[in-house]
Amino acid sequence: MSEVELHPAVEPLAFLLGRWRGEGRGVYPTIEPFVYGEEIEFSHNGRPFIFYVQKTWNLSDLYPMHSEAGYLRPVSANGVELVLAQPSGITEILAGTHSGSGIEMTSTLVGVSPTAKTVSAVKRAISVAGTTLSYQLDMAAVGQEMAIHLEAQLEKEVAGP
Amino acid sequence: MSEVELHPAVEPLAFLLGRWRGEGRGVYPTIEPFVYGEEIEFSHNGRPFIFYVQKTWNLSDLYPMHSEAGYLRPVSANGVELVLAQPSGITEILAGTHSGSGIEMTSTLVGVSPTAKTVSAVKRAISVAGTTLSYQLDMAAVGQEMAIHLEAQLEKEVAGP
Repeated sequence: MSEVELHPAVEPLAFLLGRWRGEGRGVYPTIEPFVYGEEIEFSHNGRPFIFYVQKTWNLSDLYPMHSEAGYLRPVSANGVELVLAQPSGITEILAGTHSGSGIEMTSTLVGVSPTAKTVSAVKRAISVAGTTLSYQLDMAAVGQEMAIHLEAQLEKEVAGP
Repeated sequence: MSEVELHPAVEPLAFLLGRWRGEGRGVYPTIEPFVYGEEIEFSHNGRPFIFYVQKTWNLSDLYPMHSEAGYLRPVSANGVELVLAQPSGITEILAGTHSGSGIEMTSTLVGVSPTAKTVSAVKRAISVAGTTLSYQLDMAAVGQEMAIHLEAQLEKEVAGP
């Protein structure tokens, strides 16, 4: 989609665009710490939002783990919203701000399907420095207080010839 | 992803897998009727869910219109859930049943971001007959009762050589 002109509303978030790969670490009071491989892609189609798609995999056997997909919406000079869905039966709506090289958002609504585990709130922070994208995800889930759950550093994938 | 073996839980929904293209029609009490081009893809990665991604475009200038992305989850012998996100700032969680050639679902939760329009409930029905996928989407939104909003017939895209 890179041949399509960027919508002006998306320009302040253009630092996110591209494909990012690396490894992350997961922790939570109720689980054993774990590591994962990850790929995130932020792309656009000329309209005033960014498409977000993410997947993770087991580092030893490459088997797919988590994934999520959604849309990042610039909504004011420095306001941003993220809406996404997860195959675990969760939807998230977050609102926050961007600063030119990062975004910080807190959930306004976490939706859970009739058979999904309970997640009550989520915070997501994403920042880019050079060719590295870092993020941290905190959540309050399964009766626990808000606590760090995931953090990763991903490197920007350089387009091939 | 077709080289990955299908998860047994997904087999009853395998009739949806593939890429489907065609045209749809939109109506609602508050808007002028409209038509659109559309592509839907249902795919899998070996885990017990189906990835759903959809986009529509203006038939005259091909400019992107709506899009949505999410996951279809078989949750019991004939139970299914769909979670998805839309760039308009909406998330949907639906639950229903599948019958071997179709699914019918009603929303259990529609999420709206702080700046999105109000959608209070959605019904989605999808069926496949031969190489044609048909769907109908009803919604209650912006103060209106539940009413038909979208319906389309899409043809399965045949893989090239």
